[in-house]
Amino acid sequence: MTTAPVLPRRRGRPPRLGASPRPDTREHLLRTGVAVLTEKGYSAVGIDEILRLAQVPKGSFYHYFGSKEAFGQALIAAYAGYFANKLDRCFADASVPPLQRLRHLIADARAGMARHGFKRGCLVGNLGQEMGTLPESFRAQLQEVFMDWQARTAACLAEAQQAGEIAPQLDCNTLAQFFWIGWEGAVLRAKLERSPQALEVYAQGFFQLMRAQP
Amino acid sequence: MTTAPVLPRRRGRPPRLGASPRPDTREHLLRTGVAVLTEKGYSAVGIDEILRLAQVPKGSFYHYFGSKEAFGQALIAAYAGYFANKLDRCFADASVPPLQRLRHLIADARAGMARHGFKRGCLVGNLGQEMGTLPESFRAQLQEVFMDWQARTAACLAEAQQAGEIAPQLDCNTLAQFFWIGWEGAVLRAKLERSPQALEVYAQGFFQLMRAQP
Repeated sequence: MTTAPVLPRRRGRPPRLGASPRPDTREHLLRTGVAVLTEKGYSAVGIDEILRLAQVPKGSFYHYFGSKEAFGQALIAAYAGYFANKLDRCFADASVPPLQRLRHLIADARAGMARHGFKRGCLVGNLGQEMGTLPESFRAQLQEVFMDWQARTAACLAEAQQAGEIAPQLDCNTLAQFFWIGWEGAVLRAKLERSPQALEVYAQGFFQLMRAQP
Repeated sequence: MTTAPVLPRRRGRPPRLGASPRPDTREHLLRTGVAVLTEKGYSAVGIDEILRLAQVPKGSFYHYFGSKEAFGQALIAAYAGYFANKLDRCFADASVPPLQRLRHLIADARAGMARHGFKRGCLVGNLGQEMGTLPESFRAQLQEVFMDWQARTAACLAEAQQAGEIAPQLDCNTLAQFFWIGWEGAVLRAKLERSPQALEVYAQGFFQLMRAQP
């Protein structure tokens, strides 16, 4: 997907006196990590940069995460969970037809990238691209994230097909897989071009594909 | 595209005595750079690693390239030129229908990735993904490579459309743009999964798209 805070920022009035004035340190570190790694990837970023930005001492970091690898694993898990929830919320919106829900998801991702000047991409895409230099433990974890997002997307597409929005001969699992394969390319290009155009071209082509004849 | 040597390796009998026993140093450095950076990207690789693998002294490197940035620019240019030639050769093959030429190109890319155990991806895709930490001079250069590949591909698709292989209402420039946007996602995923499956799913979907009805 594209960048997003791991946890929603607190809204409304500041916490009462006596309550902790900052979010939980672990979550704060994860949120900082997602922000930095969606922009710069894993290899180019050191723990020191994360700590400096998060204003957290090294001891606290190692209290929560034994190593940079463990931090990376926690980042992937948090990011995957955040987007699994987002997909569920989007795809469960029965007030609009199924394909419109996917359009909403894409619009949300586009807005997320625009909010950060198209500097931040998708953590899972970034790390997938970098796998050649990453801890091998990330590989299966990243693949599982794609499987999970694809399965949730396929369920929405199956609803769309039942509603007659997708040509009946198309396979929704394959379509969902296709969507996520190409989507990461679109996010990559949008970052390179600092523009939403690649997301739009990709989305338009994908919706056209779903009307393809055998 | 996907990994490939910048220059073809010498074939046939070894060079005669008295002739230089190794390829030109600049080309040798570029070839080594492409091999390493298609696997590991730019940020994770130091000049020292390139020199060690190429068995070239540091002085020679700085004779040809003033800096790592200049080396990166030369790598992109060499890679882009290599694939521009490959696209031209493939797309000019009048012995097969135009869409079959694109299939051949995809099969060639798949074979290239398989030859390296799906460890190496596309230099342009890798650097595009990494743009957040790269010298800003790379951005326009990388975008131009995509524009160039897209234009060459669009010309082949236009031939295909004239031959009735592509639905007449589709725009070949947009299709070519779509192809390259998503293709980089497919290469990324194939690397992550160490498998050709993503390339196949993507290619199949793309050919289906070209038969899409309005």
